[in-house]
Parts: sequence; structure tokens; C-alpha cells
Amino acid sequence: MKLEKYLKEFTITITPRFYETDALGHINNIAITAWFEVLRVRLLESLGSGAASVAKNWVLASIAMDYIDETFYGSDVTMKVTGLVVGNSSLKIQCQMMQGDRLTVRGTAVLVHLDIDTKKPRRIPDELRESVAQL
Amino acid sequence: MKLEKYLKEFTITITPRFYETDALGHINNIAITAWFEVLRVRLLESLGSGAASVAKNWVLASIAMDYIDETFYGSDVTMKVTGLVVGNSSLKIQCQMMQGDRLTVRGTAVLVHLDIDTKKPRRIPDELRESVAQL
Amino acid sequence: MKLEKYLKEFTITITPRFYETDALGHINNIAITAWFEVLRVRLLESLGSGAASVAKNWVLASIAMDYIDETFYGSDVTMKVTGLVVGNSSLKIQCQMMQGDRLTVRGTAVLVHLDIDTKKPRRIPDELRESVAQL
Amino acid sequence: MKLEKYLKEFTITITPRFYETDALGHINNIAITAWFEVLRVRLLESLGSGAASVAKNWVLASIAMDYIDETFYGSDVTMKVTGLVVGNSSLKIQCQMMQGDRLTVRGTAVLVHLDIDTKKPRRIPDELRESVAQL
Repeated sequence: MKLEKYLKEFTITITPRFYETDALGHINNIAITAWFEVLRVRLLESLGSGAASVAKNWVLASIAMDYIDETFYGSDVTMKVTGLVVGNSSLKIQCQMMQGDRLTVRGTAVLVHLDIDTKKPRRIPDELRESVAQL
Repeated sequence: MKLEKYLKEFTITITPRFYETDALGHINNIAITAWFEVLRVRLLESLGSGAASVAKNWVLASIAMDYIDETFYGSDVTMKVTGLVVGNSSLKIQCQMMQGDRLTVRGTAVLVHLDIDTKKPRRIPDELRESVAQL
Repeated sequence: MKLEKYLKEFTITITPRFYETDALGHINNIAITAWFEVLRVRLLESLGSGAASVAKNWVLASIAMDYIDETFYGSDVTMKVTGLVVGNSSLKIQCQMMQGDRLTVRGTAVLVHLDIDTKKPRRIPDELRESVAQL
Repeated sequence: MKLEKYLKEFTITITPRFYETDALGHINNIAITAWFEVLRVRLLESLGSGAASVAKNWVLASIAMDYIDETFYGSDVTMKVTGLVVGNSSLKIQCQMMQGDRLTVRGTAVLVHLDIDTKKPRRIPDELRESVAQL
């Protein structure tokens, strides 16, 4: 309930950059995939993971993006988390991106929490679980 | 049959660039997603689509990537097409990426062929179908 | 005078993105060069050039960057224009970038205004000169 | 003399990537700046610096690029070192880029060799000097 509310309000705003525009005035797909990473990192940080931990402890296992409508240069987009599933060592994050009132992209990423030394999956720390629980 | 053989041999080689390396000496996921676009564009070109047509007539509808193992700076990767499904107006391309003898990434992309003027999906041209058929 | 004041206040804020971080936790130089383009495009837009015109009429002739101090992930930077010289067909833009109270980068770019058809340099339009004059 | 010959032959070939193309079918300037980094890193590696050392011991102090002519998608470019000046702790690298028989870009970069711990400039190691001397 609280999580739902928290996520509902967890939003980042991205101002598309001119160099992210492709030959037809759209934002290119690679830039959008990169923005989704911005969202994920900010979410992890907001849940208590420092930047160093983000870099060292979390690896991206998979990503899936649906490009539903065109995204243009010239107006901001908002990205928000629409789903968060905390597994044992994995974290599934769903997002959507709006430009104005148009839904342009939906994405899902699965991150795995790693033990740095052994490079094996490792249980997501209780602090992060609690951060999520307290939302 | 021939298609299978063609695809089997359709390979591009990418030399990872230093700036594509992340904090831990791995190649970052965004760079790999970008390389997959290189593969798709080269495939379309090899099937007879010129660069202008690639930019104007094809849009990416979805992408899914599985990051199976780490990709490092310092040795080339090879990317190849492992599946190609020609629909009415859509093209599904599956790929895999190896670094040495390790499979590091698998990906699937769905492209849609567009009518530039109406921006509606449009039947994939016969020439491309024939290119595929003649493989 | 007014120009000086305008430029003094013309500032953009960039939040470094995690994927722009290099192996040592610094922002990589290529990202900073890209941010400088963001500043230039915003400046041209603020002087009345639309995005289409920015893409078609202006080419970058040269760029020079001095990386004075490290820029880190985790806090915003501000970029501002510190000099603007309007020539016949060229525009020289100087900028500096601060992170907190540290000056980290200085840059200079020379843009040339082009006639799209002939691809020859072309006098910078009076409207833009007037925009600058009215500052 | 030998150095001149070595540098004359030190060339890297870059195949422009489709996503590096801007709105007008040119390669964008940021991509070219990134390619110049590829050249510098390869040069350092060829002079005996490992990738780890490149990341940790060398920082970019300044860069200057002249975009002399357009670079297009669709044909390879070659980049070569046209000058190398070994200072006490700094290294100045000049390069040029050709696409076919057209000179499209000239660039200069100054790198500084750092002591990792103190972050102070540090004399360029004799091994690298000898590598250069033996060219």
C-alpha cells in the first residue's frame, strides 16, 4: 500500500538532449535505454544504496523495452516505477515513460545483487528490504 | 535452409572501446545495446535496405536483452543473428554475442516497417522478402 | 552590458548520470563534451533558433576543452556561457562548468552558420544579432 | 626518425556506427571526440601501458578538435597520430582523421601522468620513454 504510493510518486524528469535525437527528430532508443538506467540507479539510491554499492553490488541480468510511441526532442519526459518485486537476490523493476500525456515507453529490468568477492548472487540486504517495507 | 546457413555466417566483430567500460572494467549494458543496433542495421543493409531506408522506414518496437555473462574490455566480441522471422510488417531478429568462447549476451528485437507518410505499419517489401528467400 | 548580464544569468544545470561515470568515479570527458553541446543548443534556442535550424544551419567548426579539475558523480554541475562573439558567419561561445564551488572545465566552441543548399558559410541572420543586441 | 615512421604507420580504422549519425546523415561531433579517445588509448597500450594503467594513471588535461570537413555514415575512417611530444609528466598527442581521401578532423590532446595516491603529476615512466625512443 505504502509502497504503491511511494512508487506512484517516485518520478524522475529527463530533459532530452539534442545529441540524443536521431535522423528523424526522435529520441533514439539507446538514449531511452540509458535514461531507464538513470531511473533504476536513482531508485536504488533512494532505497539506501550508495553509488559505490550500485556499481559494485548490482548487475543487470535482463532488460525488456517496449517502444510504444515516438519520443521527441523539445519537451521533458517523466519516468516512473510502476512495479517493484523484491526476490531473494533479484530485484525486478518495471517503469513507464510519458511525454506530456502520451505513454511512449514501457520497460522491465531485472537486477541481481552480487557478492563482490565470489561474484555469486547474494541475498538482498535487510536494510533495503526494510526501506521497501517502510514505504 | 539457406537462410540458416546465411545467418550462421552473418557475423560482425566489435572491438570494445575504452569509454564503453564501466567502473568495474566491464563493458556497460548501454554500449552492448548499441552494438546490437549495429548488428541490426548491418543485417538490414545486407538484405538490401540502404541507410536512408533504415532510418526512415524501420522503427524499433521492442527489445529484450539477457546479460548472461560479463563482457570485458580488451578482446573483441562477435555478434551474430540466431533467428529471423519475417512477418507482414514486422521483423523479429534474435542475436547472440560471444567474447572468446563465452556466450555473454542474448537479445531479441522487433522492428516494424513503416509507411513514412502515414506512419502506419506497411507490408515489408518483396525485395527484402526475396533477399531473405534467396539466402 | 546587457549581454554580459544575460550571459551571467544564462545557466543550465546538469545532473550527471551514472553511466557517464568512468572507472574511477569521475565523469568521463566525452560526457562533458556532450553537455557542452547541450549548453550551446540551449543558448541558440534562447536566441531564437528553433531545433530544426540548430540542426541544419549550424555546424561545429572547432572545440577546445580544458579539464581543470575532476567532476564527480553525485552532485549537479552548472554550465554557463562566459563569452559570446558574433562574427559574420561564425559564433564563438566560451563556457565554464562548476561543480559546487570548484571550477572543473572551461571550453570554447566555434560554430559556423551555413546556407543549407550551398553548404557555404552564410551571414548570421539579423534576428539573432538583434536578440543578442537586445540582451 | 623511427618515431616518425612508427607514428606514420600507427593507424586505427573506425567503422562509423549508425547511432553515431546525426539528423543530417553526418557523424556527430561527440562520436568523433570519442573515437579520438580510442586512438589515444590504443597508442598508450601500444607503448606498453596496460588498460588498468590507462584508466588510473593518465588524465586528460585538454583537448582541441577542428572539424574540417563532414564525416558521413557508410564508409570507414582512419585516424592516425601526427605528432607525439613527451614532456616531463605530460604527453601531447596530435591526430588527424581521413575518410577516403578527405581530411575531415584534426585534434590535439594533452594527457597528464598522475601519481594515483597523491593525484599529483608524476614523471612519465622510463619504460614508456624507452618505448618511444626505440620506435
